[in-house]
Amino acid sequence: MSHTIKAAVLHSKGDLRIDTIPHPGQPGPGEVLIKMHTVGICGSDVHYYTHGRIGPYVVEEPMVLGHEGSGTVLAVGEGVTHLSPGQRVCMEPGIPNPRSRATLEGRYNIDPDVRFWATPPVDGCLAEEVIHPAAFTFALPDALSYAEGALIEPFAVAVHSATKAQIRPGDVAAVIGCGTIGILTALAALAGGASRVIVTDIADEKLALIAEVPGIITCNAATTSLSEVLDAHTGGWGPQVVCECSGASAPFSNLWELPAPGGTVVIVGIPTDDDVPYNITAAQARELRIENVFRYANVYPKAIDMAASPSLDLSRLVTTTFCFDDVVDAFDRGAQARPTDTKLQICFE
Amino acid sequence: MSHTIKAAVLHSKGDLRIDTIPHPGQPGPGEVLIKMHTVGICGSDVHYYTHGRIGPYVVEEPMVLGHEGSGTVLAVGEGVTHLSPGQRVCMEPGIPNPRSRATLEGRYNIDPDVRFWATPPVDGCLAEEVIHPAAFTFALPDALSYAEGALIEPFAVAVHSATKAQIRPGDVAAVIGCGTIGILTALAALAGGASRVIVTDIADEKLALIAEVPGIITCNAATTSLSEVLDAHTGGWGPQVVCECSGASAPFSNLWELPAPGGTVVIVGIPTDDDVPYNITAAQARELRIENVFRYANVYPKAIDMAASPSLDLSRLVTTTFCFDDVVDAFDRGAQARPTDTKLQICFE
Amino acid sequence: MSHTIKAAVLHSKGDLRIDTIPHPGQPGPGEVLIKMHTVGICGSDVHYYTHGRIGPYVVEEPMVLGHEGSGTVLAVGEGVTHLSPGQRVCMEPGIPNPRSRATLEGRYNIDPDVRFWATPPVDGCLAEEVIHPAAFTFALPDALSYAEGALIEPFAVAVHSATKAQIRPGDVAAVIGCGTIGILTALAALAGGASRVIVTDIADEKLALIAEVPGIITCNAATTSLSEVLDAHTGGWGPQVVCECSGASAPFSNLWELPAPGGTVVIVGIPTDDDVPYNITAAQARELRIENVFRYANVYPKAIDMAASPSLDLSRLVTTTFCFDDVVDAFDRGAQARPTDTKLQICFE
Amino acid sequence: MSHTIKAAVLHSKGDLRIDTIPHPGQPGPGEVLIKMHTVGICGSDVHYYTHGRIGPYVVEEPMVLGHEGSGTVLAVGEGVTHLSPGQRVCMEPGIPNPRSRATLEGRYNIDPDVRFWATPPVDGCLAEEVIHPAAFTFALPDALSYAEGALIEPFAVAVHSATKAQIRPGDVAAVIGCGTIGILTALAALAGGASRVIVTDIADEKLALIAEVPGIITCNAATTSLSEVLDAHTGGWGPQVVCECSGASAPFSNLWELPAPGGTVVIVGIPTDDDVPYNITAAQARELRIENVFRYANVYPKAIDMAASPSLDLSRLVTTTFCFDDVVDAFDRGAQARPTDTKLQICFE
Repeated sequence: MSHTIKAAVLHSKGDLRIDTIPHPGQPGPGEVLIKMHTVGICGSDVHYYTHGRIGPYVVEEPMVLGHEGSGTVLAVGEGVTHLSPGQRVCMEPGIPNPRSRATLEGRYNIDPDVRFWATPPVDGCLAEEVIHPAAFTFALPDALSYAEGALIEPFAVAVHSATKAQIRPGDVAAVIGCGTIGILTALAALAGGASRVIVTDIADEKLALIAEVPGIITCNAATTSLSEVLDAHTGGWGPQVVCECSGASAPFSNLWELPAPGGTVVIVGIPTDDDVPYNITAAQARELRIENVFRYANVYPKAIDMAASPSLDLSRLVTTTFCFDDVVDAFDRGAQARPTDTKLQICFE
Repeated sequence: MSHTIKAAVLHSKGDLRIDTIPHPGQPGPGEVLIKMHTVGICGSDVHYYTHGRIGPYVVEEPMVLGHEGSGTVLAVGEGVTHLSPGQRVCMEPGIPNPRSRATLEGRYNIDPDVRFWATPPVDGCLAEEVIHPAAFTFALPDALSYAEGALIEPFAVAVHSATKAQIRPGDVAAVIGCGTIGILTALAALAGGASRVIVTDIADEKLALIAEVPGIITCNAATTSLSEVLDAHTGGWGPQVVCECSGASAPFSNLWELPAPGGTVVIVGIPTDDDVPYNITAAQARELRIENVFRYANVYPKAIDMAASPSLDLSRLVTTTFCFDDVVDAFDRGAQARPTDTKLQICFE
Repeated sequence: MSHTIKAAVLHSKGDLRIDTIPHPGQPGPGEVLIKMHTVGICGSDVHYYTHGRIGPYVVEEPMVLGHEGSGTVLAVGEGVTHLSPGQRVCMEPGIPNPRSRATLEGRYNIDPDVRFWATPPVDGCLAEEVIHPAAFTFALPDALSYAEGALIEPFAVAVHSATKAQIRPGDVAAVIGCGTIGILTALAALAGGASRVIVTDIADEKLALIAEVPGIITCNAATTSLSEVLDAHTGGWGPQVVCECSGASAPFSNLWELPAPGGTVVIVGIPTDDDVPYNITAAQARELRIENVFRYANVYPKAIDMAASPSLDLSRLVTTTFCFDDVVDAFDRGAQARPTDTKLQICFE
Repeated sequence: MSHTIKAAVLHSKGDLRIDTIPHPGQPGPGEVLIKMHTVGICGSDVHYYTHGRIGPYVVEEPMVLGHEGSGTVLAVGEGVTHLSPGQRVCMEPGIPNPRSRATLEGRYNIDPDVRFWATPPVDGCLAEEVIHPAAFTFALPDALSYAEGALIEPFAVAVHSATKAQIRPGDVAAVIGCGTIGILTALAALAGGASRVIVTDIADEKLALIAEVPGIITCNAATTSLSEVLDAHTGGWGPQVVCECSGASAPFSNLWELPAPGGTVVIVGIPTDDDVPYNITAAQARELRIENVFRYANVYPKAIDMAASPSLDLSRLVTTTFCFDDVVDAFDRGAQARPTDTKLQICFE
């Protein structure tokens, strides 16, 4: 084990470098040392690269990027019993304060003190080796590749969204926005109980990626009336669940009129504009329930089980894999936001 | 029993008259004939009087006003077993289509086919006698006066709101707006499990009406910071439940920042503006659940039980009672919307 | 249209005949006249045939059997808009009192006044033609055969059970008992959000029927430890949901120890013995939630959508189809309760 | 601060002594040093005294008894910000493993690794001074005495039970058993949303203690039919919630027939017999939901708020207070289980 490792370090807006940094050392009690294999690039990573900040989170010191990771256990600390060296794993990137009120209530994702990879000033996992709490490190079953393991993080957002939707078996769901989170949310809703999911976007290239999945119906909202498609698939009653995953403001103009009476809206995407329009008349007439999603809590084991099931294939989302030496190229590509680039990943091997 | 009765009939905007109309006849199977005693004036009644319409509902034919009623059973139709002549009763004013999907799902309040008293073209109950389905007619316990019986209708909105809030025992709640619905919602939240309820308004006269109720804390938001009051009463954590009852748009500017992490917002008031601002960043950071209220379903027996409990006194809301002959004066007074007029009622006797 | 029709009429215990009975006539308002195509034989039908009663329900007058039916609309009554002659349909067999408290609360299945096909004294649907309320008659999509249409009734029990289980996406479920209801419940749990379902029985022949379905794991509890299988598939944590579908008393000896902490037990099967043992220590240590199932409510449209999805194939359950003239043979076969006979159906054509 | 303190130490069955033990020392990071004021005697404390064990938990080493405590903060460790010396506090006695799955899911009460005061081998709080995690130590408002502070622990069981009951505003509840937990559960249900609570027991002396509380109806089941009382108070519909708090097996003979259709049973009491009868027919006919309670989680702040409200007076439960020097007498008295002894407490001052 060398005394230094390489990592992708963002020094400031636009200044991403492969740096040599100190080795993280040996795992303490309850910790694991992991050799990273694959790291996915998230929109937030790219945003830090292109803007140097996300809202109140500003890159003021050099910070390792990356929070969607998979790898192999190198060593385990004292008291770690469910993992051992050589095991393939993926990691949940947010570590909450174990004694905070939100954590004790089971909502550790909204603990204000949570420390999350690649959210300033916390270093991420785009490094050759990392140390992580064993309680937030999960074994990958043989059925999952490292690439799929690195997709568990965004898939966890989707599974958490489908969980908060409280989908009842056979419900019809609609998903607005067909980026990585939209696709994963549609797949999670389908595996999570929906009998079918109508996915809408305004880019045919994006919709093409999941158009063939049984149970998925795609709708290009630029050319087709979403309301009419929803009516056709629900006998005019409307979908019980609508998930907003676009992160755009435009869908809110008629979002509240889409669900069935007694239906649910789940807000997953994070819009640039804080304030979007809320149509109270429409929401009251249907007595809508609205759920808001922030990351995830307690879903990693379930997301892994779902991803490993034969009916679900997450690997289709990985459109290009870069080797670690090309990490700057990978981020430049991410910054282009091509509609045909769903998920870009970095591979260390 | 005479062949005609008197009723308060709205002919068009501003044209309210005491008319002589045909007697409703004898109750059919499952129906009850009721001699009305007291009818409360709701903001919607006044709005039909002053504007001739509420949104898409337009007074095109003469319509009897009133939907908050109590009275005495005169006769019961075939198959009615739980009521008998002489019983004091109050009535749930909305009759749904019994075979609609919403009704079968237990959400008959959002059945698009519901027929609701004094919503065009359905006549209301400001008449000497009315016929009503027995299933929507409820006996009043001795502990409740006719005046309180006529308050069960708006109280049902409050109980339904507290139900949808899913208050857990000991939660702290906040209620925005101290009109009839705000006061009743505060009382329902308190009786419904909240350990205390902070009620806010910008009119001291309104707040005074419930300031003395144990468990109620009032806050004039024009002169005091609501956030600071909430922090003081929750150790900085925030209330678990916030009910918007003002029907104004202004509270939405910071509404989404008020609840505790994992908290709930219940939208009870009906704003004039359809679109109010929705702060997604604030809602996601707390993973808020939002519930929207439209009237009520399945709460009348509970609302009556709650109103009859010794700890609750609804009669304090009735600020003035008019006799039926003065019904036009009563509506003119209602149209003034005096802050010290909480609930105006019409009495037939 | 003839003035008489044929029907399978149970006169008393063991005395089942094909009788000629009066034609049901023309559909009234809100009704539909249906030409029956396929009717499944349920265990309750067989039980009336072999015992003449089920608990308090005694066959005292001749009664048409059958409640799992599909057919074709012949005529519709006044006000029926969502169905028309020629449409293929299946029917929900229980018609509640539309004004009862249970019905208004959305739980019409537990309305004490519900009238259910082939529950004395209500005639069932093993007849050439029947009249039924349109609100409880559902169009079959092209993807479903009449045989599958007649399976929607038992599948509705399964979908209702999976709904009451409140399965969260990715949960692991266990199903005890691999008869018709057990198999359907396992399939509903899988389609309803479970990442995998462990099904247990003591007859290999029964387990074989679904052993090949992806996501289903079978366990012969006579030869393998169910607890060990569950541990292996949940990392020792236990399944979040356990559905008792055997209707036997034996599984209750360790049922309450099977679920994960915070897990759920759903009681679907109807045991001969009223009282089964309830292990409070085990149930409290896990803070189990227990749900009890009685038929279903509001799930037919969802059950049909689920059955029509490409990933679900209900037809595998139909092991033998009899023509209507052989209906007595079919019931004699049903009375044998062969482990390889999952679902027997009667076909009119 | 002396180097030794006095504590009530159980050496073995029947051998309780006031011992001199080492002072707990100074609080570490996140900890608090507390001077104990009042400690209530729980049935489990008495059971360890009289039997030397509770099920698998055996007193093998000398163990300090007591887990219902209140006191005053003497010193706080590093990082403790919400408490300071001199503050009056009560303490939640169970400390979970912060990284266990149950804890992360918000159900730390059912974490198998939880360390709970006076559960072998963990020492309790019947000692002059104790050290406790600040996150499980809660400030008492001025409105609460030390005696009431020491009642928060059993009241937390009651509040947790009322929470799991998911009482909707106006529900009628029944509580079986009028010991400490039964009384507290009745009060929690009433404050937690029930419009009235019928409490039943077979000892008039016990019922007398709360018979005068508005909203409480008592029923001596030895002399009156509980079913008839419930029918009278619910119009024959039944209570929506039934809490079993007696810990006896007898009530289970008709327990499952008491709730309304769609109602809930909450199992709070811990019977000596593991297996009690479960009437599936009755449970299914009503589609009962059953919840099982084990201690509590996340309710202390709410229990304190509720106890401090003017409408709730917990102090009535304390029937006798002993000084610490008489602790053995107090336990001997507890072992007599007199029906007029509701809660015995030990006071250090």
